[in-house]
Amino acid sequence: MDLAAGPGTAPGHDVAQRRHCRPGQQPGPVHDGPDRPELDHPELDRPGLDRVEEELARFFADAKLRAARIGPPYLRLWEALERAAAGGGRSRPQLVLLAYRHLGGTDAQSAALLAASYELLHTALLVHDDVIDRDTVRRGVPNVSGRYRNRALRAGADAAEAEHAGTSAGLLAGDLALAGAYRLLRRIEAPREVEQRLHDLLDDAVFSSVGGEVYDVELSHAAAPPSMEDLAKTAHRKTSVYSFEAPLRAGAVLAGAPAPAADALQRFGRDAGIAYQLVDDVLGAFGDASSTGKTGCSDLREGKRTVLLAYAASRPGWDRIAGLVGRPDLTPADAERIRRVLVDCGARDHAVDLAARHAGRALAALESDGVPAPLRQRLGGLLRAVVGRVRPGGPGAAPGPAHRPAT
Amino acid sequence: MDLAAGPGTAPGHDVAQRRHCRPGQQPGPVHDGPDRPELDHPELDRPGLDRVEEELARFFADAKLRAARIGPPYLRLWEALERAAAGGGRSRPQLVLLAYRHLGGTDAQSAALLAASYELLHTALLVHDDVIDRDTVRRGVPNVSGRYRNRALRAGADAAEAEHAGTSAGLLAGDLALAGAYRLLRRIEAPREVEQRLHDLLDDAVFSSVGGEVYDVELSHAAAPPSMEDLAKTAHRKTSVYSFEAPLRAGAVLAGAPAPAADALQRFGRDAGIAYQLVDDVLGAFGDASSTGKTGCSDLREGKRTVLLAYAASRPGWDRIAGLVGRPDLTPADAERIRRVLVDCGARDHAVDLAARHAGRALAALESDGVPAPLRQRLGGLLRAVVGRVRPGGPGAAPGPAHRPAT
Repeated sequence: MDLAAGPGTAPGHDVAQRRHCRPGQQPGPVHDGPDRPELDHPELDRPGLDRVEEELARFFADAKLRAARIGPPYLRLWEALERAAAGGGRSRPQLVLLAYRHLGGTDAQSAALLAASYELLHTALLVHDDVIDRDTVRRGVPNVSGRYRNRALRAGADAAEAEHAGTSAGLLAGDLALAGAYRLLRRIEAPREVEQRLHDLLDDAVFSSVGGEVYDVELSHAAAPPSMEDLAKTAHRKTSVYSFEAPLRAGAVLAGAPAPAADALQRFGRDAGIAYQLVDDVLGAFGDASSTGKTGCSDLREGKRTVLLAYAASRPGWDRIAGLVGRPDLTPADAERIRRVLVDCGARDHAVDLAARHAGRALAALESDGVPAPLRQRLGGLLRAVVGRVRPGGPGAAPGPAHRPAT
Repeated sequence: MDLAAGPGTAPGHDVAQRRHCRPGQQPGPVHDGPDRPELDHPELDRPGLDRVEEELARFFADAKLRAARIGPPYLRLWEALERAAAGGGRSRPQLVLLAYRHLGGTDAQSAALLAASYELLHTALLVHDDVIDRDTVRRGVPNVSGRYRNRALRAGADAAEAEHAGTSAGLLAGDLALAGAYRLLRRIEAPREVEQRLHDLLDDAVFSSVGGEVYDVELSHAAAPPSMEDLAKTAHRKTSVYSFEAPLRAGAVLAGAPAPAADALQRFGRDAGIAYQLVDDVLGAFGDASSTGKTGCSDLREGKRTVLLAYAASRPGWDRIAGLVGRPDLTPADAERIRRVLVDCGARDHAVDLAARHAGRALAALESDGVPAPLRQRLGGLLRAVVGRVRPGGPGAAPGPAHRPAT
C-alpha cells in the first residue's frame, strides 16, 4: 500500500501513463506516480515554487560538495537521493505556500525553506516506504534501493545480497533526507515560539507517519482482511497528516495566522486527505471517469488493500474474484471481472460517496471565519477537481451527511 | 564492523563477559557491548547523568503515551526502541556533561537535554547499523530487528519474511530515535546562535556517520581487503565524530566556551576516538592484557575487518591464517594460531603503537590554553586508562612521534 506517496502519486494519476493489463505482462513492483496535475495549475504560486526548487537545489549542492570530500561512494548516495527528490509534483510545498501567502505571510525565503523541508520529509518517507514495501521502481525509474540493487547485481552479487545492498542504501538515504528536513526547518528565521511550533508540527508529522506505517505493516500481515475503518485510519496517519494537515497548518503558523484559521486548515487537510486517498483507490481500480475510458489495473494486480476491496470482501460476489485480486498475471478480462463485482456489490459507489462526504466536510471546514475567501476558493477548487475525477458532479452533486456546500 | 557502537561497545568490553571460542559453538551475529566501565567512574557527574536518564525517561514516556493512542502495535515499537536505548554506558552524555561542566556551564537542564539528544542519535545509529549488518542481538538480547523477526517467526512467517519484518521495524524505530535527537535538541534554551551551532553539530554528526557507514558497506563488498588507512578513515567518520568530537564540542558550545577550547576538545575527540577503536580491535582479538588472560575471539570468528588483520594481510604468515579468519566454527586452537601470527608479523605491536600515537596526539590537544586543568586531567585519565588495557605503561610509556606528555 503506497500511502506515503499521498497526493504525489494519488489522484493525479494520468491514466494514459498507467500501465495497462496485458496478458503475460508480469511487472515487478511499480510506483508510477506522476504528481497531481490539478495542483500544477497556472494560477499557482510559480515564483514561490521556483524558490522552493532553489532551496532544494542549494541543499543538495551543499551536501554533494561535502559528500565529495568524503569520497565518490558517498557522493553517489547523495546523487541517488537527489534523484529521488526530483520529479514530484511538489504538492506539499504548494500547500505550504498557499496557506502562507493567503494568510498574510511575506517572507518568501522562510516560506520556501518550510516548503522544502516538507518536500524532504516526503522524500525520506517515500524512500523508507519503498524499502519496507520492497519496491524498486518509482515514477517509472529505479528508486534508491533499485539503483543499488541493480548495481550490486551487475557487480556479481546474488539476489539476496543485492536486495540487501538496496535496503542499506535506501535506509541511509532516507536518514539523510529526514535529517535534511530538520536542517531546512532550522534555517527559518522566525520568532522563537513560531520556530518551536513549526518544529513540533514536523515532529508530529514524523510521529504520525511512522505510526501509520507500523499499522500498514501490521495490517499486511494480519490473517483477516483489514476493516474499512482500519484502512482509513492508517491512510490518515501515514499520509494525510504529513501531506495535508501539517503543510497547511505550518504555512498558517509561519504566516502568524490566528489559531482559528490554522485549525480550520488542519481540519480541511484531514478530510481532504481522506477524500484524496479514496479517489486514488477508485482511480486505481477503474481509471479516470473523466478521461477516455482507459483503465489501470496495477492496484488490482498488486492486490492493494483498498476501501473498495475491504467493502467487497464482505458482500456477495467476493468469492468470484477473491482468487483474482493480487495475481501478478492478471489479464484485462480478469480486471474487468473484478471491476464488475466492485460495481455490482456497491463498493465503487460506497467509496465515491465516502470521498464526497469527506470532501464535503473538508469544504465545510473552510467556512471558518479565519479563512480568507481567496484561500477558500483555491483549496475548494483543488478538492472539487479531484473528487470530480470520479464523480463528475463533484462533491456538491450528492452531498453526504456532513456536507455543507461551499460557496 | 560494528563501529557505530563506538565507545559503547569498544574498549570497555569486560573480557569476562565476552563469549569464548568453544568447538562447535556457532553463534549468530552478536554485539555484546557492555559499555566502557572506565567511564563509569565514581567521580563522574552522577547527578548530571541521573538528569539525562530523567530526560530520556520523559521522552519515552511522552512518546509511549501518544503511541498508545494510535494503538498497541505502535506502543510496542516504542517499547522496543526504549529497550534499545537502555543499558548503554551513556558515554556520549558523559562527554557532553564533562565538557559542559568544566567549561563553566551551569544550566543542568539544557545540558541534560543535549546529552540525551546524543544518546538518542547513538540509539538511532545502532538500530540502523544493526539492520545494515543484519545483526539481531545486541548487549546479549534481541535488538529491535531481532525482536520483530522472532515475533514474525512465532506467527508462522518464513525466514525471509521474518527477516524483512525485523528490517522494517528496525528502520522505523531508528527513524523515531533520529527524529527524537532533533526533538530534544530543540528543547534546549540557549541564545539563537548557540542553538544554531548545536544543530549544525548534530547535523554534521549525522552526515559524517552516514558517510562512514556508506564506506563501511563499500569496503565490505570490495574484492580487495581494505587498507589500514581506509579502515581508520571509516572508523573515524562512522564513530569518532558522533561519539567523541561532536559531544565534546557541543558541551563546550553550550557552555559558551571560547573557540580555542571547543577546537581543542574536538581535536582531542578525533584522536581519542581513533585510539579507542584501535584498542577495541586489539582487545577483540587478544582480550584484556590487564585482566586474567581470558581472551575473546568473536572478532576473529566474524572476520571483522580490523587494522590488525589489514596489517597482517600484507605480511608473511598470512596464508597460514587467511582461511581461518571469519570461520563461524573457529576453535580456540584456531584462534590461538591466528593470534600467534598477528603477534609474529608485528600486527599487534603496530596497532598498539598506533593507538598510543593517537592517544599522545589527543593528550597534546588538551594542552591548549583554553582547556582547564581539571578537564584535562579527567579526559587524559580516561584515555590513559583505555590505552593501558593493551599497553600497561599507557601512552606515556612509549610515546609516538606526535606525543607530548600531558601533565
